[in-house]
Amino acid sequence: SDSPRPTSAEAQELYVYEINERDRGSPAYLRLSQKEVNSLGDLVPFSNKIYTGDLQKRLGITAGICLLIQHVPEKKGDRYEAIYSFYFGDYGHLSVQGPYLTYEDTYLAVTGGSGVFDGAYGQVKLQQLVFPFKLFYTFYLKGLKAALPAELVCKPTTPSPSVEPSPAAKACDPQSVIPNFTN
Amino acid sequence: SDSPRPTSAEAQELYVYEINERDRGSPAYLRLSQKEVNSLGDLVPFSNKIYTGDLQKRLGITAGICLLIQHVPEKKGDRYEAIYSFYFGDYGHLSVQGPYLTYEDTYLAVTGGSGVFDGAYGQVKLQQLVFPFKLFYTFYLKGLKAALPAELVCKPTTPSPSVEPSPAAKACDPQSVIPNFTN
Amino acid sequence: SDSPRPTSAEAQELYVYEINERDRGSPAYLRLSQKEVNSLGDLVPFSNKIYTGDLQKRLGITAGICLLIQHVPEKKGDRYEAIYSFYFGDYGHLSVQGPYLTYEDTYLAVTGGSGVFDGAYGQVKLQQLVFPFKLFYTFYLKGLKAALPAELVCKPTTPSPSVEPSPAAKACDPQSVIPNFTN
Repeated sequence: SDSPRPTSAEAQELYVYEINERDRGSPAYLRLSQKEVNSLGDLVPFSNKIYTGDLQKRLGITAGICLLIQHVPEKKGDRYEAIYSFYFGDYGHLSVQGPYLTYEDTYLAVTGGSGVFDGAYGQVKLQQLVFPFKLFYTFYLKGLKAALPAELVCKPTTPSPSVEPSPAAKACDPQSVIPNFTN
Repeated sequence: SDSPRPTSAEAQELYVYEINERDRGSPAYLRLSQKEVNSLGDLVPFSNKIYTGDLQKRLGITAGICLLIQHVPEKKGDRYEAIYSFYFGDYGHLSVQGPYLTYEDTYLAVTGGSGVFDGAYGQVKLQQLVFPFKLFYTFYLKGLKAALPAELVCKPTTPSPSVEPSPAAKACDPQSVIPNFTN
Repeated sequence: SDSPRPTSAEAQELYVYEINERDRGSPAYLRLSQKEVNSLGDLVPFSNKIYTGDLQKRLGITAGICLLIQHVPEKKGDRYEAIYSFYFGDYGHLSVQGPYLTYEDTYLAVTGGSGVFDGAYGQVKLQQLVFPFKLFYTFYLKGLKAALPAELVCKPTTPSPSVEPSPAAKACDPQSVIPNFTN
């Protein structure tokens, strides 16, 4: 490629779909507040599947926890503090922390990464499509040593509640997964 | 301003008061160790209010968790591992992780941020004024793209157990809050 | 020294042994999933002792939490999401986040630090020697302002299940600890 080598000052965009296919026992809503309405004290460990932004390849999983901070009745939703990672098979992982609101889009911080994501920082936009089963993320990644691997870069499918992974990606067919995709 | 544009090598100081006004159901002390004395296994989700260093404006909230690591009888206190974020309304958020000792000041790591805090790193000094209701923080922020917004920069009120937010800030009067302050 | 001052682009290696000497009530396995097999929902706060890579000095402790993400029967093990810090007495701390698999080595992200670790980023390799009591870490640290303190730098003892801290380090003799080692 003739494109200049990215520097830490230039953000690279990475698109990811997170989908809860209800086959991982996730989320585990731990109602430790012992209150009837969602309340501070409730903890929600979770792990969902992730796909490329064009939904043609299975990447791996998310893994982490949401801390219930506040029930927001006027929005009919909740504020969570989210602390989790995105796993991309042999390519490594990205860790993030920040707000997850069930009623609007948010930006979280990218706190670090491993593998091709070694040195990563920046932020990630979280868009909820179907609560709590389908989300779309746009990472704005800085600090990477090189351009993102080609198979992670794509023109994303326009986010909507009806998007679905390709059948081959959902089935984890060999040509529709990244190397050693996290499962 | 004639001041040079900050670079990632220059730390910008940001002063924040965190006050538990006992109106958010915080903290939620989850005695999961099932022991009578505070012990490893206890988890403490929390969310308090934050104000500017001069106590003239409401900024937003903290949100996160303290993990009880060790009861320290000779200090009549406890060691926690703290993982939380500071929310600054439309300006974004800062995430931090590190030690919270109920008996002495500590430094935590700034692990990232969003909005005007995109790319933030560095450390933050935590000073406890009234356990566990009033704390003063000095952030030493690097990595920001620009100078901090003017309304976040101020000469801080000298930390002491008796400091209180201005009545207008406590009441969230429109001139005493930042844009879309987190609540 | 004639060696050039490290820059953020050069990784400095730091070797650490983590040993559970079964005297800290760690780990606290919280079976919140209420299932018989390890499952999403289980939380594992922990805190162990850490030593220099040559096992001649006690450094401090680890402190944090592992979130059980998935039992992996074909590997006879488990996937955890790990969020914790390493404490090095007066030198400060390092925070990390990433995968902990009981059946293979992993890389975690360094998300920040304090003291001599202010501004730290990069990754750390986790090698398990005796599950879950003995681990060896190789940090690849970037972003530090200076070379690591001399007493943190050493030729590491080759990792193996039989390694033990020197008796003087285990006993925390004054010449076998770092300044104000975290305990």
